[in-house]
Amino acid sequence: MQINVGILGLGTVGGGTLQLLQRNAKLIQRRTGCEIGVTAIVVKNLEKARPLAFDAALLSNDPDAILNDPSIHIVAELIGGVAPARDYVLRAIAAGKSVVTANKELIAKHGAEIMAAADQAGVDFRFEGSVGGGIPLIKPLRESLAGNHVRQLMGIVNGTTNFILTKMTREGRDFEEVLAQAQALGYAEADPSADVDGYDTMYKLAILAGIAFGAPVSIQDIYREGIRHVHARDIEYARELGYVIKLVALARQDPDGEIELRVHPALLPTEHPLANVNDVFNAVFIQGDAVGDVMFYGRGAGSDPTGSAVVGDIIEVARNLCRGKSGQLASEAAHPLRIKDFADVETRFCVRMQVADRPGMMAQIATVFGEKGVSIESIVQKKSDGETAEIFWMSHRTTQRAMARSLNEFNRLDAVRDVASVIRVEGE
Amino acid sequence: MQINVGILGLGTVGGGTLQLLQRNAKLIQRRTGCEIGVTAIVVKNLEKARPLAFDAALLSNDPDAILNDPSIHIVAELIGGVAPARDYVLRAIAAGKSVVTANKELIAKHGAEIMAAADQAGVDFRFEGSVGGGIPLIKPLRESLAGNHVRQLMGIVNGTTNFILTKMTREGRDFEEVLAQAQALGYAEADPSADVDGYDTMYKLAILAGIAFGAPVSIQDIYREGIRHVHARDIEYARELGYVIKLVALARQDPDGEIELRVHPALLPTEHPLANVNDVFNAVFIQGDAVGDVMFYGRGAGSDPTGSAVVGDIIEVARNLCRGKSGQLASEAAHPLRIKDFADVETRFCVRMQVADRPGMMAQIATVFGEKGVSIESIVQKKSDGETAEIFWMSHRTTQRAMARSLNEFNRLDAVRDVASVIRVEGE
Repeated sequence: MQINVGILGLGTVGGGTLQLLQRNAKLIQRRTGCEIGVTAIVVKNLEKARPLAFDAALLSNDPDAILNDPSIHIVAELIGGVAPARDYVLRAIAAGKSVVTANKELIAKHGAEIMAAADQAGVDFRFEGSVGGGIPLIKPLRESLAGNHVRQLMGIVNGTTNFILTKMTREGRDFEEVLAQAQALGYAEADPSADVDGYDTMYKLAILAGIAFGAPVSIQDIYREGIRHVHARDIEYARELGYVIKLVALARQDPDGEIELRVHPALLPTEHPLANVNDVFNAVFIQGDAVGDVMFYGRGAGSDPTGSAVVGDIIEVARNLCRGKSGQLASEAAHPLRIKDFADVETRFCVRMQVADRPGMMAQIATVFGEKGVSIESIVQKKSDGETAEIFWMSHRTTQRAMARSLNEFNRLDAVRDVASVIRVEGE
Repeated sequence: MQINVGILGLGTVGGGTLQLLQRNAKLIQRRTGCEIGVTAIVVKNLEKARPLAFDAALLSNDPDAILNDPSIHIVAELIGGVAPARDYVLRAIAAGKSVVTANKELIAKHGAEIMAAADQAGVDFRFEGSVGGGIPLIKPLRESLAGNHVRQLMGIVNGTTNFILTKMTREGRDFEEVLAQAQALGYAEADPSADVDGYDTMYKLAILAGIAFGAPVSIQDIYREGIRHVHARDIEYARELGYVIKLVALARQDPDGEIELRVHPALLPTEHPLANVNDVFNAVFIQGDAVGDVMFYGRGAGSDPTGSAVVGDIIEVARNLCRGKSGQLASEAAHPLRIKDFADVETRFCVRMQVADRPGMMAQIATVFGEKGVSIESIVQKKSDGETAEIFWMSHRTTQRAMARSLNEFNRLDAVRDVASVIRVEGE
């Protein structure tokens, strides 16, 4: 049996998918037990030069060339974004086609709707490439670890910000400077917001947490903070204390079932496995009640790695089709997630501030922390010019509420000239 | 639909599996869409005290209580070893039952036979727990990475030897001393051979390589060397040069298709991801032609982690059964593996030797290396007492044949008092 694949979108991931299906066709046929052929490719711009070898007759700029072609079994949606991808995916499913995608935004925003449609139509819908590039994550989490209550999931899932933070750490340079270089190298977009403000990480966390807890996660429930406010000096202080700073995606379930979902920079102890995940590499650390700690590590983006994930999904769907069945996992029985009020979430904090260097100042600030319920573990004071000193406070675990109240109070405090940064501590 | 599971063997893994199925029954039912119940447990000794809570009426010492009970859908074979496990597994399959196991020796020695029987009977046979405890490995390798040609696979897959080497490294102590302590702590068996001589690692490599290359691997084709000959001094020298010593399982496919399979201690650069896998943790590093480098890390043994893998398999088989189908992946089309002659395998080497400390000695040894085709990268000489010096040679890549011939020649050389150790270098 020949399985026909239609590819929507021939950018980085679409091109990688096409090339891999061609290059490893023999291997894939052996492993699938059936032939997989790309029989249609839809792009926006037919005129664009593409460094790919394929039969030009397959190319069209009309999505109906795939969506309305009854001979196509699997649609690989590799356009990205919500519109028109959502529409295409739903139409493909309605037409009885299985769908494979790497579209994190689409799944984070409309995954539940699409999965329900796929369930109803009895077709496969898979999205391994949407998180962590080629690193197997969704499938191991959903299937291999299915016997576990996931207690915590913490990941570095955005290559751009990890590249920037790694470079800032190695070279002691500041954010804006490194961002400009990353843009020049093509590692960051001209508009870098999706990466550096944490949106991309947030979408991926929504997907992973949805799988881990077996129910849709709304991105509205995720606290999100990017890396624009991380300074070289924060990284330097952190290093002195034995930490590195990473942008983490974190989902945690309390013993009483309440869930925390957050994306923010965090100090991680240098000996934590995620602390050594550098450059564009990604890794996800999962703690299950039975399995303990497991970590998945690899290249989180790029044409070949993400192509590997998309092709892995295509192979699995093809195996199912060749054997005349859908492998779609029925959605779990509905059970609403209880999201913890963010103000109640407890973390440790690092606070770097510029203060008036005068007697009693330290006691004044410490008193505020104490009154608001923030207990301090350590203090590093540096760089006083006789007038202004810089202090780095490290707190014990405290609620977001208590820290927000302290910071609020500092606004009114003469001695505190500026709160330069507030960064959480994780992985301890 | 209720899925009935029979558990053969109630040791560490059997106990962990039973407990996890009980503890997370609600979660598992939600995720599976059907109820999974353990309806029979077979043990050798009915009288043995067990710290487990279960209905004593389920217990029997007669394997037929499971194998001949038509109401049992899934058999979890958790006895270990080849006999009688092989017989039980084949009988279960012949009776139309799906089988889940964590038995590495059985799969390494009889996997092909059992998989063929399962294919023919149309039942599932799964063995995620056989390698790496709870770390998802088999399934991601077989399914998520199916679009890749695996170029290399290198892993630390034996917790006992990793615990011993980690302790030797941290405390500068010698093998025998640390082994005795590991035995006292219960991390090593009274007869430690299966672990320290590399048999356990060899079985696991056979399983992983069989999946990676899509064809059965015979353990006869695996070069195997344990850690008994690794000395504190080797570890110390290695550290000075920026390496740690680990027992690695390694499978590599050349561009021309020839395969190397070996288990031996190896020097790994300290910055290699596997170099930081310590104590009883396991990790497997896989290089695919599309995905690049990916690594899987976690607890490689123990009742809960391995139970997690076994339960993951049971859940998957149950999902298939509830939907009235087998999820068994048909075996790949046969394609014989070409195993490289071990003498032709190229590696770098470290050779530590005691030599007569006299003029011309260094030149004499270097000449032998040169004549046999071993090119030297660096030399560290230490600890001369005026009579005997200790030298640590680090070679460039060379064949096993060339090194064997050099070592042979040293036997005849007066200047070489003793070749204390020969350890390969990997991960560069």
